[in-house]
This record gives sequence, structure tokens and C-alpha cells, in this order.
Amino acid sequence: MPLRSLDELRDVVEEHLVGLPLTEELGGLEPVLRYALESGGKRVRPVLCLAVTEAAGGEVERALPAAAAIELVHTFSLVHDDLPALDDDDLRRGRPSTHVVHGVGAALLAGDALLVEAFRYALSYERPETARELAAATLGMIGGQFRDVTGDDADLEALDRLKTGRLFAASVGLGLWAAEVPKDEQTAWRAFGEELGLLFQVVDDILDSDGFAERFGAGGARELADRAADRARTRLASVPADTSVLGELVDSLAVRNA
Amino acid sequence: MPLRSLDELRDVVEEHLVGLPLTEELGGLEPVLRYALESGGKRVRPVLCLAVTEAAGGEVERALPAAAAIELVHTFSLVHDDLPALDDDDLRRGRPSTHVVHGVGAALLAGDALLVEAFRYALSYERPETARELAAATLGMIGGQFRDVTGDDADLEALDRLKTGRLFAASVGLGLWAAEVPKDEQTAWRAFGEELGLLFQVVDDILDSDGFAERFGAGGARELADRAADRARTRLASVPADTSVLGELVDSLAVRNA
Repeated sequence: MPLRSLDELRDVVEEHLVGLPLTEELGGLEPVLRYALESGGKRVRPVLCLAVTEAAGGEVERALPAAAAIELVHTFSLVHDDLPALDDDDLRRGRPSTHVVHGVGAALLAGDALLVEAFRYALSYERPETARELAAATLGMIGGQFRDVTGDDADLEALDRLKTGRLFAASVGLGLWAAEVPKDEQTAWRAFGEELGLLFQVVDDILDSDGFAERFGAGGARELADRAADRARTRLASVPADTSVLGELVDSLAVRNA
Repeated sequence: MPLRSLDELRDVVEEHLVGLPLTEELGGLEPVLRYALESGGKRVRPVLCLAVTEAAGGEVERALPAAAAIELVHTFSLVHDDLPALDDDDLRRGRPSTHVVHGVGAALLAGDALLVEAFRYALSYERPETARELAAATLGMIGGQFRDVTGDDADLEALDRLKTGRLFAASVGLGLWAAEVPKDEQTAWRAFGEELGLLFQVVDDILDSDGFAERFGAGGARELADRAADRARTRLASVPADTSVLGELVDSLAVRNA
């Protein structure tokens, strides 16, 4: 069977997230979680997770709980980061932020619940590796966010490796666990994930004219992005698998304009 | 070896929490987590967890990660509940709340990190039951907190079974998993945990003159508390184990005045 394309994988993710069962006891908080989840995002991380699983010879269906867990953690981080106490963003992808629509208290609790739902899904696997990797990555991400809000950005690459890179790397890692790739065969895959996370963040900064673009200029940042994309492709080439779809993901992230 | 007393177990918990390793990548956020954790609380939930493990014939040391996970979740909930967007409490046990000392943004992120650290510790066990039970209980607790802040308290007992009861029940449940008590022998223990949670909440309401005390008067609430304590003792009596220390815990929670 041929590998699914990026668009097909994105459709699989969207369909899965729309019908994702949430804990009944959340009661009236559930619509707040759904509002945050149905944000029209690009779903880059869960698509990456599924594409890794499929490239590594695993079943996409088996990776769905892991992909959902990754997107739930990402969504939690957006809901909390947008709160007045942190970035104070009223808009998220052209739509009012969760706290603008549902109130700050509800958004705070919904973020908490999204985070725990992520672990509930990661814990649907019999083995604990998936949830362990998610916990470590999320703690790194929170540490990165704290650096960011306190202006501790002298080492921008170290900050981004935490804030963005850890969850990208975990998207790859969780895809590998779902495909049951043994730990000692994961190294090249994981190095690919690291580069992809850096690529994503540098392009983000170019689009927002901050971070790397502010520090090195648009041209300097573009060069950094291209070098990260090249290294990601080199890493992929060293993986003994059909990585054509992942290669397309590198290409699309390198040239994205939104 | 005789069972450890409640005071001895509390000392074990305190010592364990003071030295509890936290994730290095949290960086400057770590002192915020430590401030919240070293709050001078009574440590009722982790003591309950350890006492259940020991009564069920398990090793207290084996239950320490579970007990820490429970207290981390409890502490996360206090830090977030105290924030201006929810209860807006400037004081917690006579000390300035975490956000008063460290700022709202740092307290928000520290609460998130405490929650994930809880899962990291719950995931230190090879089997996933501990972390799964913690996730379900935490989601129920968050659902209860949402009911509380939105004034959805027509059914006060249902609200408290979520907001307080789920974490008490999980304290018992995690203690049982640490002692490797098979699932089909856990029923009476778990029923005990439910009653203990209700007892704790009703006494809390009597001390704060709200909730059950507001609705049924101090005398009515006292009667509810005494009945919950009696049922907890009856449940304990049906457990084939030395539950003397747990019986002392029931007694102390029934008459506590702080």
C-alpha cells in the first residue's frame, strides 16, 4: 500500500480530533476544550507523528492516540500562553482566543484539562514509553516558555529547542513508539525531528519578524532555515525507510507562508 | 514490623518532598514550584496513600512516587485555584499565595509544571495503572472545580465527590497499586476512600462556614460528617488487614480544627 500523502494524513487527524471523546465529568467545560481544539490549525505535529509511524512501517491507526496527545498538549500551551498573564493575545489564527470567548477562568481550567486529556490518551498504550516521553517533552516546553516570558533569550537556539523543539521531537518519538521501532534504531529519526523543530521555529520567526529574524535579519534567518532544512533532509536520507512523505513535509515547512 | 504512625508517615512525606528532584529544564521556574510545594500543608492525601500501602502489606518506599504524584496534583490545583481568574486568594495557609510572590504568569506556568511532574512520577512505575488512575481523578477534579466556579452546586455532594473526592479516592487507589493489591480485592478499600473524601470536605465546610455548613447549618453538617466517619470505619472493618493507622486517620479528620 502506498504511503498516505500529507493532505490525507491531515484529513485523518481532523476527523479524529472532531470526534475525540473527552471525559464526561468535565461537564460544561467540554465545549471550551472543543473550541480550543477546533482552531483551524495546521496540525503539523500530529501529521508528523502519523507520517513517522507510517514511514517506519507501522499502522497509522495505532498512532492516532499519540497524535491526539501531541495536539492536545500543543493546544493546552496555546490556550495558556494566550492568557492575559502571559502573552495576552486576543486573537489566535484570526479567531477570538479561548479566554476572550469563554472567560479567563474557564480557559485556565480548559487548558489544564487539555493537558490531562493528553496524558489519558498517551496512557491508552500498554507500555509507558509514550506517556513518559510526552511528560519530559512537555516539561521542557514549559521551561522554554518560562525563559521566553522572562526575556531569558540570550541563547535563542537553546530557548527554541525547549519551547518548540521538544514537542516536535516528541512527535517523532511518539510516532516511533507507535510503530514499535526499537530504541537503538531511533537515533537518526530523532535527529531529523530536532532539525525539523528548528526549521519550523526559524520560519515562524521570519513570518512574525521576531526571534531569529530580529536577531539575524530576514536574510540571515532564511539562511538558517535553509541549513536546518538541508540537515533534516540529510538525516532522513540516512533512515532505512521510504521517507518521501516526510521529505515533502520538510519542503512544505521550509517554504510555508502562514 | 509495626505499622508506622500517622506522624511518622507525615515526616516521611515531608522529607521526600523537600528533596524531590524536579526536571532540570524548568530552570528558573523551579523555585516557584518549590515555593508552592513547601506550603506547610497537612499532607493528608500522600499520608493516606502511604498508610494504605502499608496496611495492605506493601512497602512505603515503593509508594513514595505515587504519594508525591498525588501531592503534586493537589498543589497544582491550589496554585491555579488561587489565581485572580478563579478564587483570587492572596493567602494560602497564612502565607502569600504563589502568584502574589512570583507573579501570575510564573504561577500559571508553575501550576502546569507541577501537574506534568505529577505524571512523570506516576509514570516511574512499570505498569500504567497508577498514571491512568491519576489522569481520570484529575479530570474529575477539574470538572468539579469548573462546577464550583460557575455556581453549579445544586447537588453539593456530587460536586464534592468530583472536586475533593476523586483525589482522595485516587490516594487510596494509588496506595493499592503500589502494594500490588489485585483489582478484584480493591472494592472495600475504595469505598473507604470515597467516605473519607466526603468526611474531609464536610469538615472543611464546617471550618469555613460554607458549603454543607451553609446549606444544612453547623449541626446538620456535623451530623453528616459523623455519619461519613462511621461509614468509613465500617468499610475499614471489612478490609482483611491491620487498618489501625487508617482508623486513626478517620478519627483525626473527624475532629480536626484546622
